[in-house]
Amino acid sequence: MRPYVFINSAMSADGKISTVARKQVRISGEDDLRRVDALKANVDAVMVGVGTVLADDPKLTIKSVVLKRTRVDQGRTESPLRVVVDSRARTPPTAAVLGPNALIVTSRQAPRHRVEELETKAEILVVGERKVDLAALLGRLKDKGVESLLVEGGATLNFALLNLGLVDEIYTYVGNIIIGGSAAPTLVDGEGLTNDFVKLNLQEIRQIGDGVLIKWRVVSF
Amino acid sequence: MRPYVFINSAMSADGKISTVARKQVRISGEDDLRRVDALKANVDAVMVGVGTVLADDPKLTIKSVVLKRTRVDQGRTESPLRVVVDSRARTPPTAAVLGPNALIVTSRQAPRHRVEELETKAEILVVGERKVDLAALLGRLKDKGVESLLVEGGATLNFALLNLGLVDEIYTYVGNIIIGGSAAPTLVDGEGLTNDFVKLNLQEIRQIGDGVLIKWRVVSF
Repeated sequence: MRPYVFINSAMSADGKISTVARKQVRISGEDDLRRVDALKANVDAVMVGVGTVLADDPKLTIKSVVLKRTRVDQGRTESPLRVVVDSRARTPPTAAVLGPNALIVTSRQAPRHRVEELETKAEILVVGERKVDLAALLGRLKDKGVESLLVEGGATLNFALLNLGLVDEIYTYVGNIIIGGSAAPTLVDGEGLTNDFVKLNLQEIRQIGDGVLIKWRVVSF
Repeated sequence: MRPYVFINSAMSADGKISTVARKQVRISGEDDLRRVDALKANVDAVMVGVGTVLADDPKLTIKSVVLKRTRVDQGRTESPLRVVVDSRARTPPTAAVLGPNALIVTSRQAPRHRVEELETKAEILVVGERKVDLAALLGRLKDKGVESLLVEGGATLNFALLNLGLVDEIYTYVGNIIIGGSAAPTLVDGEGLTNDFVKLNLQEIRQIGDGVLIKWRVVSF
């Protein structure tokens, strides 16, 4: 048993989510940022890998005051639970994601002093020996009442989840720029597949701003 | 003066044109292959980088008998001129692209023995000292009467052309699979851009088969 899992990510027309220098790039516009904010308002938890925390330092909270108030009126937290997959507890103690309703998920390999420092700023969950056991983590999240989970990258976490068959839908916003670079992070990196590719069903295509939103459903076997 | 230049490429939903093992993957279906064949029938030349020749050994000819006959009836060659950008003359003498109406473009750096071997199987054009000078090459093609050029990859040639401002349109077919892999070739590789990204204007989005065709026009400065 696990939550319903969406990956949402903007990518350039050539599939990049950042530059070779890992510098964050504005790929989508206001219209798409509003879409993502609304998507976030509908889920119970938002998850990123520690690489994204280190590169972009996201807050992962909802921006719209109206959407936040609606959640509170429904008896929910203002923003979804914020989850960081962080096997070695590399999240900086100053990270914007930390604070109430943040969950740092580490493995047993994480250095104790880093875990102790983060413990004062977020809930810590240890799942897995050398690396976070993602399937087990999703089970634990479900036990906590998380029915829907929005994954906001990065490329390594996206690959790990897809490779384990733990993703239900992928929403990609294809922006109107070319970034290029054989070393630039893409929507899905990791080791990659050489056969038995993850198969998708096209759900929707829609122009938003100057780019294209493509919604895929992962075909499960 | 240069030809009108299109890049056409299929990529996976995560922007890959091949696997980490550079194994060719069927990303699009019959409907899209017919679209590409028709696109090819309309241009004067088709161009690829030598990496694509080494990885995929494409013929670059038109497949449809009807389209070939139409060209001949119009007084054109059966298929467009086939151009390989190959600075060091690495095209294998057995490559499927070789034969009448093939042009191998090398730099002065290409070993003489390889050029001499290829000379029996294709026209050779030397443009550039260490690497093929792409801007000069496009000028030479224009002089030869090439008004329209379809670039079919790979990732390195795509980057070089875009980086030099030598591309007018990009057609990407986004297929319904995830390939993944930080080392897998993407639509545009090379060194990549860290600022002054190539800007695009969305021209068309259309479902074809199980994927999406996105047509972009490159914004020139």
